[in-house]
Amino acid sequence: MMIDKIEEIENPSFLKELSISDLKELAEKIRFFLIENISKTGGHLASNLGVIEITIALHKVFDSPNDKILFDVGHQAYTHKILTGRAKDFKTLRQIDGLSGYPSRKESIHDIFESGHSSNTLSAMAGMLLSQKESEKDNRIISVIGDASIANGMAFEALMNMGGTKNIAPIIILNDNQMAISKSVGSLEKALSKLRLSRKFDKFKGSIYKITPKVLMPSFHKLKRGVKAAIQRDNIFEDLGFDYYGPYDGNDIEIVIKTLERVKVQNKPLIVHFQTKKGKGYYFAENDETGEYHGVSPFDIETGNSFNSSIISWSEVISRSLIEICKEDPFHVITPAMVFGSKLDQFKVQFPSLLHDCGIAEEHAATMASGMALSNTKVFLTMYSTFAQRAYDQILNDICRPNLNVVIGIDRAGVVGDDGQTHQGIFDLSMFNGMPNTTICMPSNAYDAYNLLRAGFKNKGPFIIRYPRGSAIYDVLNTNKYDIAKKYRTVIQGSKGYVISYGPDVNRIKKLILEHNLDVSLIEAIYIKPIDEEFLKEIASPSCNILIYEQVVKSGSLAESIACFMMENNLRYRNFVSMNIKNMIFEHGSIKDVLERNGLGDDDILRKIEEMICD
Amino acid sequence: MMIDKIEEIENPSFLKELSISDLKELAEKIRFFLIENISKTGGHLASNLGVIEITIALHKVFDSPNDKILFDVGHQAYTHKILTGRAKDFKTLRQIDGLSGYPSRKESIHDIFESGHSSNTLSAMAGMLLSQKESEKDNRIISVIGDASIANGMAFEALMNMGGTKNIAPIIILNDNQMAISKSVGSLEKALSKLRLSRKFDKFKGSIYKITPKVLMPSFHKLKRGVKAAIQRDNIFEDLGFDYYGPYDGNDIEIVIKTLERVKVQNKPLIVHFQTKKGKGYYFAENDETGEYHGVSPFDIETGNSFNSSIISWSEVISRSLIEICKEDPFHVITPAMVFGSKLDQFKVQFPSLLHDCGIAEEHAATMASGMALSNTKVFLTMYSTFAQRAYDQILNDICRPNLNVVIGIDRAGVVGDDGQTHQGIFDLSMFNGMPNTTICMPSNAYDAYNLLRAGFKNKGPFIIRYPRGSAIYDVLNTNKYDIAKKYRTVIQGSKGYVISYGPDVNRIKKLILEHNLDVSLIEAIYIKPIDEEFLKEIASPSCNILIYEQVVKSGSLAESIACFMMENNLRYRNFVSMNIKNMIFEHGSIKDVLERNGLGDDDILRKIEEMICD
Repeated sequence: MMIDKIEEIENPSFLKELSISDLKELAEKIRFFLIENISKTGGHLASNLGVIEITIALHKVFDSPNDKILFDVGHQAYTHKILTGRAKDFKTLRQIDGLSGYPSRKESIHDIFESGHSSNTLSAMAGMLLSQKESEKDNRIISVIGDASIANGMAFEALMNMGGTKNIAPIIILNDNQMAISKSVGSLEKALSKLRLSRKFDKFKGSIYKITPKVLMPSFHKLKRGVKAAIQRDNIFEDLGFDYYGPYDGNDIEIVIKTLERVKVQNKPLIVHFQTKKGKGYYFAENDETGEYHGVSPFDIETGNSFNSSIISWSEVISRSLIEICKEDPFHVITPAMVFGSKLDQFKVQFPSLLHDCGIAEEHAATMASGMALSNTKVFLTMYSTFAQRAYDQILNDICRPNLNVVIGIDRAGVVGDDGQTHQGIFDLSMFNGMPNTTICMPSNAYDAYNLLRAGFKNKGPFIIRYPRGSAIYDVLNTNKYDIAKKYRTVIQGSKGYVISYGPDVNRIKKLILEHNLDVSLIEAIYIKPIDEEFLKEIASPSCNILIYEQVVKSGSLAESIACFMMENNLRYRNFVSMNIKNMIFEHGSIKDVLERNGLGDDDILRKIEEMICD
Repeated sequence: MMIDKIEEIENPSFLKELSISDLKELAEKIRFFLIENISKTGGHLASNLGVIEITIALHKVFDSPNDKILFDVGHQAYTHKILTGRAKDFKTLRQIDGLSGYPSRKESIHDIFESGHSSNTLSAMAGMLLSQKESEKDNRIISVIGDASIANGMAFEALMNMGGTKNIAPIIILNDNQMAISKSVGSLEKALSKLRLSRKFDKFKGSIYKITPKVLMPSFHKLKRGVKAAIQRDNIFEDLGFDYYGPYDGNDIEIVIKTLERVKVQNKPLIVHFQTKKGKGYYFAENDETGEYHGVSPFDIETGNSFNSSIISWSEVISRSLIEICKEDPFHVITPAMVFGSKLDQFKVQFPSLLHDCGIAEEHAATMASGMALSNTKVFLTMYSTFAQRAYDQILNDICRPNLNVVIGIDRAGVVGDDGQTHQGIFDLSMFNGMPNTTICMPSNAYDAYNLLRAGFKNKGPFIIRYPRGSAIYDVLNTNKYDIAKKYRTVIQGSKGYVISYGPDVNRIKKLILEHNLDVSLIEAIYIKPIDEEFLKEIASPSCNILIYEQVVKSGSLAESIACFMMENNLRYRNFVSMNIKNMIFEHGSIKDVLERNGLGDDDILRKIEEMICD
C-alpha cells in the first residue's frame, strides 16, 4: 500500500507490496522531500538525489537488517534513513542531538557501518562476511560505493582481498555518477568510461529484461555472459575476481530491481555497475560540474542560491594567498579530490598546469609531494585535517623524516561541526607534533595567513599551516609582507595570568576578555611547534597562572608540550589549566553547539579564566 | 672491461662495455658476494638474490643518476649499492655508521628515493615526473616494484593517477617472484598467475628476440602488440592506462637487457613484467615458501641455519599465548602479510580458518577487523608498530571512535635497530594515546603478556598490546591466569625518587638499579593508558623526583601525559626528567648502539638517575 506522507514510513517492509509505478511515485516524493528539507537545513544534496532509486530497490529486493546494506561515504544514505523510519527527523539534520548526516548505529538497527571517510565499507564488509556463521550464510551483505570512492587504494585492497578469498559472496553496487565532489579523475575513470560506452552498443539489453520470463531465470546469467562476451571485453573487476554486471541505468527503478533480483541469487563476488545522475531531479545540482551542490548550506530552491554565499571561508583566504604568491614564485599544488572543497577553483583557472587533483588518494598525494620536493620543486600539499589521517605514514616517512621542503595546508582544522564524529579536525596536531622536523602554525587572520604561507615556502623542512572550517576575518587581502617570528605574540596585556591559544580562537577569546574586563594577558602562539621556550621561562613564577585553549585532542597538544617543558625545566606556576578535547568523541551540530556541549564554549572559557585567577 | 673484484666497482659506467657473457659472470660474482656477506652480517637475502640480473640490466641500459632508478621496498637495492660503488662497505651492513640496508640519499647520488615501507615509490615517481623540466624530459624514471607491493592500495592510487595523467611516461618494472615475505595472496596474485601462464603459450616470443634485426626495431612494438593481442587478452594494467610488456624471464640477463632497450625509447606509461626467482642461486632461499630467508640473522652457508635460532622472540611469545587462548575461546587473527614476521605460522597450522593474511594492506586489515567486531566476532589485529602508521585513520575512525572490541597487537614497538630510520616503532604510542577509548599496555615478560592478552579479549573497547623486537624472558609459558590491575607495579622500593617505565626496559633498568645500588623505586606502568592517577597523587611532594624512560617520541608519550596531569592537579615535585625521543631520527645499527647514540643507553640512564636524586 502506498504511503501518504514520507514522514509516516516506519520501516522498509511496506515496499514489498508496491508496484513499479508506486515505487516510481515514491522516488519522486522522496526527491521532493530531500530538496525541500535540505534547502532548509543544508546537508549533502546531489549525491543523495542520484541514489534514490538504487536505495529503494535495495530495500525492496533485500531484507534489511538481516541482509546488511552498507553505504560507502555515508553521506549518500539519506534515502536509506527515510525508508528506515527517520524522515520525521530530517528537520533536525546535522544539528545537535538531531539526525546525523551519516549512518549512525545509535539511530537505527539498519545502519550497519558508520562510514564517514570514503572507501572503507568494502573492508568492513569483508570482515562481516568472514564472521558469518553457517546459519547466516543466506543473508547477503551489500555495499553501495561511488566511482570516485572505489578508485581509492583502500577500496582496491578490499577488492583484491575479497576477490581472492574463497567462500564469500560480496555484492558491490557501483554507483557511478562520474563525480567525486568535482569530476572524477584518473585512469580507472577512463576504464569506467569504456564500460559506459559499451552500454550504447548494448542495444538489446533492455529487451532481454522484457522478454526473459521467470522460468528462464536460472539460465539468465549464462545467457547474459554470452551476450556480454560478444559485446564487451573482460574488465578490471573481473581481473580482480568479481563477476561484473552492467552498466545499467541506476535511475530506472525497474531495471535496478530486476538486476538486483537476479544478482541476489548468485553466490560469488560480484559488482553491479549502475550509472546514475548526481543531483538528479534538481536542475542546478544536475548541471553542476564543480561540486557546489555536493554539500550545501541552506539555499533558495528557485534560484539555487545559498543564503550564506557572502561568507569568505578560511579555505578561500588560503587559496587567494596562494594565487598571489604563485604569481611571484610558482609552485605546484596537490589536492586529493578537494579542488572545490578547498576552494582551489580559481587557482586551477590561473595555473592549470600547476594544480594536480589526484582523486581520493591521500597516501599517494603525500608521497607525490615528496617526489616533487626531492626534485627541488616547490609544492603545496593540501588536505582536510581529518583526511590527512589517511596519510600519516607517508607524511611522516616520505616528507618529515627526510626533512623535505613541503608546505602542508591542513584545512578544516579543529571542530568542524555538522559533519560530525568522523570528520572532526582534532587529531592532526597530535599527529604532526610527534613527527620529526615539523614546523606547525595557525594564523588568526588573513594577513598572518599570507605571511605564514610566504614563510612556509622559504622554510627548510616540512611546514604545516592549519586553518579551520568557517569564515575568516577578511576585508581585502593585505599583501604587506612581514616576517612572523617563531615567538608568542602578546595580544592583550594583563596582570593576573596568561591565556594561550592559536588560530581564530584568539579573536574569540580576545572579545571575551575585553567584554568582561578580565585582567589577563592573551598570548597568540602563531607557531604551535616549536614552543616559545624563552617566553615560558620569562613568565614562570610561583604566582603564574596559565590557561591553554585548543580545539584538538589533549595527547600531543600544545598544553602537553608546554606542561612537559615546564616540569623538565623546573619552571614554577600557580595554576595550570588546559582546555582541549579529552578522551571523548564529538557529535554533530553547529560548531558553537558542539564546543559548548564539550566544555569548550565561551561560558566555559570565562569560567575557567575566573577560577584560575581567583582560587 | 670486466672487473676483478666486486669491491673495486666505483660506479656503473663499466657495465656499458661488458658483453652478455661478462654480465652473466658478474651476476654470479655478485650472487656469491651477497650470500657470503649477508651470511656474516645478516640482512635481506632472498629478494636481493632474485633481482640481481634486473639491477645489472637497468644500470647497463639506463644512465643513473640522470635516469632515476627507484627501488620499492628499498631492501632489494643491494645489487644497486654494489654497482654504485658500495661493495666495500658491505661488511658494515646495517651496523651503526655502516651501510644502510635501504636506499640512503646520504650514501649515494644514485639513491633517489629512500623507500622503507612498501608501495610508495610509484607515488614519488609521479611527483618526479611532474617536476621534470623541458630539458629533463629525455631522462627516464624507473621504479622496480614487487608483485606483493604493487598489490597495495597506495600503489594502485599511483597507477590510477599516472595512468590518467597526460605527458608523463613512467617505466615500472614489476619484479614478480610470487612472494611477499611469505607467498603472495589476493586476487591480483591470481590475475598475475594468468599472465604468467600466457608465457607458456608464447612459444615464439623468444624467437622474436632472436630474429628481429636492429633495422626492424621501430616496428617491433607494433609487431609485439599484434602477437600479444593474438595470444593474450587485455589485462588490468592496460585498463589502468599502462602499456604492458611481459612476462619475461627476469633472471635471464640477455632478455632483460633487450626488453629494457626496447621500452627505453617508448614514450608512454608502461609496465614491464619480469618473473624472477626469490632466493635465486642459494638452495635454502630458493625453496623457502614461508619467508625464513627474507631477512636473516647471520647464518651458516652450508646448512642454512641461523646462528641465533635459539632465541625466543617477543613475536613468538605473543603467538604462543594466542594459541593457548584460542584453544579455550576462539578468535580470528588478521595480519597484513606478516604471518612469518609475527611468527603466526603455528597459529595458522592449528587454526587455518581463523588466520587471515590480507597481504600488504594495513588500511584494509584494520577496517576488516572493525567489520568483524561489528559482527560480535572476537578478533586480534596484528601489525608492526611502523606499519600501523599506514592504518592511522582506519584504527581511529573504524575501531576506536565506535569503541569496538578489537585487540591490537603492536609488534616491533620501540627501537628496532638495524632496519633503521623508516622502521622504528617509536610513533605508535603518540598515535594511540590521542585516539578515543584506547587502552594501551606493554608487558615486560611472557607471563604478563599472556594475562594481558586474556584481559584484552575481555576488555570493552580497543585494547592495544605493544611488544618489542628482540628476545623475551621466556622459560615455559606459564598459563597461570591472574588479572593485572590498571595500577602501576612497584618493582623495586627505594627512597630517593621514582623511575617509571614499561615493557622489557623495566627488566633492563631493574638490573642497572640493583647493580649500582641506587636508592630509587622502580615503577612498572604495565598500562601506559590510562595513567595511574592515584599513584601519582600519592607520591607527589616537594621532594619527589620522577624519571620516565621510554623508547617513543616525546609528543604523546607517557611523560607528557603524566606531566600535564601533574600540572593540572597542582601535584608537587622536585625534579622531573623524561628520557625519550626528541625531534630526532634514529639511524640503523644494533638496538644497543642506536639507543646509546641517542642518549637512551644504560650509561645515560644511570647518569640521569644520579643527577636527579643528587642535584
